[in-house]
Amino acid sequence: MTGTLYGLGIGPGDPELITLKALRLLQAAPVLAYPAPEEGDSLARAIVADHLPGGQTEIVLRMPMVAARFPAQEVYDRAAEEIGGHLAAGRDVAALCEGDPFFYGSFMYLFGRIAERFPVEVVPGVSSLTACAAVLGAPLAARNDVLTVIPATLDEHVLAQLLRDAEAAAIVKVGRHLQKVRKVLRILGLLDRARYVERATMDEQRILPLRDLDADSAPYFSMILFHRRGEAWT
Amino acid sequence: MTGTLYGLGIGPGDPELITLKALRLLQAAPVLAYPAPEEGDSLARAIVADHLPGGQTEIVLRMPMVAARFPAQEVYDRAAEEIGGHLAAGRDVAALCEGDPFFYGSFMYLFGRIAERFPVEVVPGVSSLTACAAVLGAPLAARNDVLTVIPATLDEHVLAQLLRDAEAAAIVKVGRHLQKVRKVLRILGLLDRARYVERATMDEQRILPLRDLDADSAPYFSMILFHRRGEAWT
Repeated sequence: MTGTLYGLGIGPGDPELITLKALRLLQAAPVLAYPAPEEGDSLARAIVADHLPGGQTEIVLRMPMVAARFPAQEVYDRAAEEIGGHLAAGRDVAALCEGDPFFYGSFMYLFGRIAERFPVEVVPGVSSLTACAAVLGAPLAARNDVLTVIPATLDEHVLAQLLRDAEAAAIVKVGRHLQKVRKVLRILGLLDRARYVERATMDEQRILPLRDLDADSAPYFSMILFHRRGEAWT
Repeated sequence: MTGTLYGLGIGPGDPELITLKALRLLQAAPVLAYPAPEEGDSLARAIVADHLPGGQTEIVLRMPMVAARFPAQEVYDRAAEEIGGHLAAGRDVAALCEGDPFFYGSFMYLFGRIAERFPVEVVPGVSSLTACAAVLGAPLAARNDVLTVIPATLDEHVLAQLLRDAEAAAIVKVGRHLQKVRKVLRILGLLDRARYVERATMDEQRILPLRDLDADSAPYFSMILFHRRGEAWT
């Protein structure tokens, strides 16, 4: 009997936004795997820290901060090998995924390496997308609205084209692309409708109109939401 | 002291996909409110039935099946009045929302009527969007992918334009628009990449390639996912 790899969505940050299912599988697994920066603590592990029963084996995927420094592919290759060893020995492995595993999540790189050889089950979680809307008190989309999720990493002219046509948009991965996004929204006359959320549902959460944000860059866990009608229900 | 209206995302269908926070607020509220068809049982109530402590007042929003028969606006107006009465009397009200309250959810119509007069807190839930991806074992989007959520209710030429340009797409509200969506995908040469999910995470869940679906219409709780690269991680 081989073990199962569980990709657990643990939610956007508030430890209470984990599902009963993810909590059950998290506590039952003899082995945990989670991403962490090259140095320092893992946010994913911190989110579930109070739920851990203790005594679990932990596999830490140390992700390179600078892509060029060493390839992330190697980190996933090594982790997949280590996880595969546990699965082959019949031990379940719970991979912790901030938000949802399949919404721009790095879990898919483990999934792609493991799913052909071992059983994998993905447990969906509360994504940053709906968490940001909830803390803003602003519906994402209603009725026949098209909702576009746009990575801020795209080129300026691509962003402009997407935002010009968007009814409702969530701009993700803002980080060091904040200035570019703000410029595009200003040129399109949409800046006043854009709202900024940083670290939604976490203790350090910040929410403000994008035009009031006095910063050149944003943390990784930030998002800009915008609706052409102002509010989705109008 | 007035009460608080809680908009609780209770997840896509599996009762275990409720969050700890929604469960706590659900069980503590003296009053529940939830949508139901004109006749018959409420799916939202069924999802949480095993979690209910008993003895709660229940407000059922009976939604018209045929829009023309009686206006949904009146249902929301009346419910908002009844809910407002409880809140004014200091009683918290938990509104049950399938999936997430602000992802195409009808909760926003209550929110729009209540939020100016009483405190409202929205608790995000696992949306059908990420639940469908999880049960398919297919990531929604990765890296710089633009993810477009498209209601199947749109006109054929609008659908065609959106899908022609989409990298990753989730087509929601399929229902009686199935044939139209299938036709558009076929014309665009994208049918073979589209996957169909019905009632994700529920007991009656069905998953199949869209080309293999032998039906003229689909239930309300169905979605079509598509990724131009086949798999998001490639």
